[in-house]
Amino acid sequence: MSDKSTPFLLTILGTSSALPTSNRYPTAQVLNVRGRFFLIDCGEGTQTQMRKYKIGFSRINHIFISHLHGDHIFGLIGLISTFSLLGRTADLHLFAHSEIQAYLEPQIKFLYPEGISFRIVYHPLNFKREQLVFDDKTVTVYSFPLDHRIATCGFRFEEKPVLPNLIPEKLKKYNIPIRNRQAIKEGADFVAGDGQIIPNSELTVNKHKARTFAFCSDTRYNPSYIESVRNVDLLYHEATFANDNQALAQTTYHSTGEDAARVAREANAGKLIIGHFSARYRDHTQILKEATAIFPNTEAISEGQVFSI
Amino acid sequence: MSDKSTPFLLTILGTSSALPTSNRYPTAQVLNVRGRFFLIDCGEGTQTQMRKYKIGFSRINHIFISHLHGDHIFGLIGLISTFSLLGRTADLHLFAHSEIQAYLEPQIKFLYPEGISFRIVYHPLNFKREQLVFDDKTVTVYSFPLDHRIATCGFRFEEKPVLPNLIPEKLKKYNIPIRNRQAIKEGADFVAGDGQIIPNSELTVNKHKARTFAFCSDTRYNPSYIESVRNVDLLYHEATFANDNQALAQTTYHSTGEDAARVAREANAGKLIIGHFSARYRDHTQILKEATAIFPNTEAISEGQVFSI
Repeated sequence: MSDKSTPFLLTILGTSSALPTSNRYPTAQVLNVRGRFFLIDCGEGTQTQMRKYKIGFSRINHIFISHLHGDHIFGLIGLISTFSLLGRTADLHLFAHSEIQAYLEPQIKFLYPEGISFRIVYHPLNFKREQLVFDDKTVTVYSFPLDHRIATCGFRFEEKPVLPNLIPEKLKKYNIPIRNRQAIKEGADFVAGDGQIIPNSELTVNKHKARTFAFCSDTRYNPSYIESVRNVDLLYHEATFANDNQALAQTTYHSTGEDAARVAREANAGKLIIGHFSARYRDHTQILKEATAIFPNTEAISEGQVFSI
Repeated sequence: MSDKSTPFLLTILGTSSALPTSNRYPTAQVLNVRGRFFLIDCGEGTQTQMRKYKIGFSRINHIFISHLHGDHIFGLIGLISTFSLLGRTADLHLFAHSEIQAYLEPQIKFLYPEGISFRIVYHPLNFKREQLVFDDKTVTVYSFPLDHRIATCGFRFEEKPVLPNLIPEKLKKYNIPIRNRQAIKEGADFVAGDGQIIPNSELTVNKHKARTFAFCSDTRYNPSYIESVRNVDLLYHEATFANDNQALAQTTYHSTGEDAARVAREANAGKLIIGHFSARYRDHTQILKEATAIFPNTEAISEGQVFSI
């Protein structure tokens, strides 16, 4: 469970699909894994939403872009521009289709003929198969292909395990040498001098289950990506339409609430959250109802919501 | 005075300067002159603000862009994209620096390789002198150069006069022939057969003063553009800073509240509204106070406000 020392928090910045509505923003989410911040998609207005929901600009060093449709990228140039106005110097890592460079760089050159204050490092995604795209001591991120009109990737964020703490009193009681302690942290029992086995569970506290989040948008239902989201604790899956527009969902390569719920059920996700609602729906009541019928632990997202695992 | 049959309404969509804040949008305003809608500047999030404040997308056929800084243009691509998604067919007239075409067209081509659903007609502005840029039977629009870091224009919107109505009872009473009526509408008195002069004021109602609005942003104070805003009923002038940052205003080619008020006073404007506030100010209290000391009829703008003349 997320606490102050080991946060795993997803903040929702935008929930709408391509057409604007008066009270929703296009797709953008920020995942905070123990102090590492990852921005996922960047629709128009993302920088304003970040200010509103107190996501510090300097915390963002990694941006993941699912695909190059406007409602997922129109906020990038504004964010990059603001970073530069603020004098940012740290590299910005952009995980996206390789073509994003041909889209962004001419704009940057036009607006800032003398260059911006920091470097953008482009990391092209693979749209054929699942791939490890980021790895540090806290998090591993994989991309995997979805099924949309244009090349689109989902992302899976896997926290690395945190080793538990040894209980000082027990170390003393059993006189456990320093050389044995790392193995116990990693799960070993302790064998005392007299052959007595002290079980690991007696020696450690704060066991921490590594947590996972997956992001699937935009896509229509396809069993091809189920394995990539297998057993995640939290699954975001787009649900643009309700069942009344099932045919439209197919032809536009989008999902219904039911489609999202099927993915969550088949992948054995812990919890499902849905968004990317079409502007044709006044609210998400019907979409959520249809999803919940298949996967009860489903929630519809709204701007500013924070999900903690 | 603006009424339902002859509206002259300015709706404020954004009031901030370049850096985003949690509760302000960058520059965008919509002027409605008797049913003609003109969008002036188009910062990030303009389309969302239009939805929020109920400006119909199909009403916008003319967009005026003061200059090519990001906080005045980042909303354009999203708006154009939405127009196309909605199947717009009407031409969109874009009055801006000629270079805007080299900025926008590659983005449009990238996002819509098969083209968008409508035509954009580019109208390059003149940054050397005042120029008539638009004229129809209701409105005339002039651009005029301002004094900013890059080529920037202000705009003046002049309503065309509406002729007053003739009073039917008086036409009958004085037996006024049809051939005389147009001249009376245009202001003539009527000379009856017996030489009696019936003054125009007795024959007409609904006299309507043609109204004017001018937009000045971004700019530092410069007497060069006073003549272009002479006697306007409503003047919007940027006021990025308070007097505490007077030197910064000069070097960044921006105005203080006092600068804006000087322009209003020297040009004999009817009313001054100020905006484009720097994110460094928590609110506009100090800027407004300093402006009002010089030009009392000053108001600070906020999102969603509507000014009626």
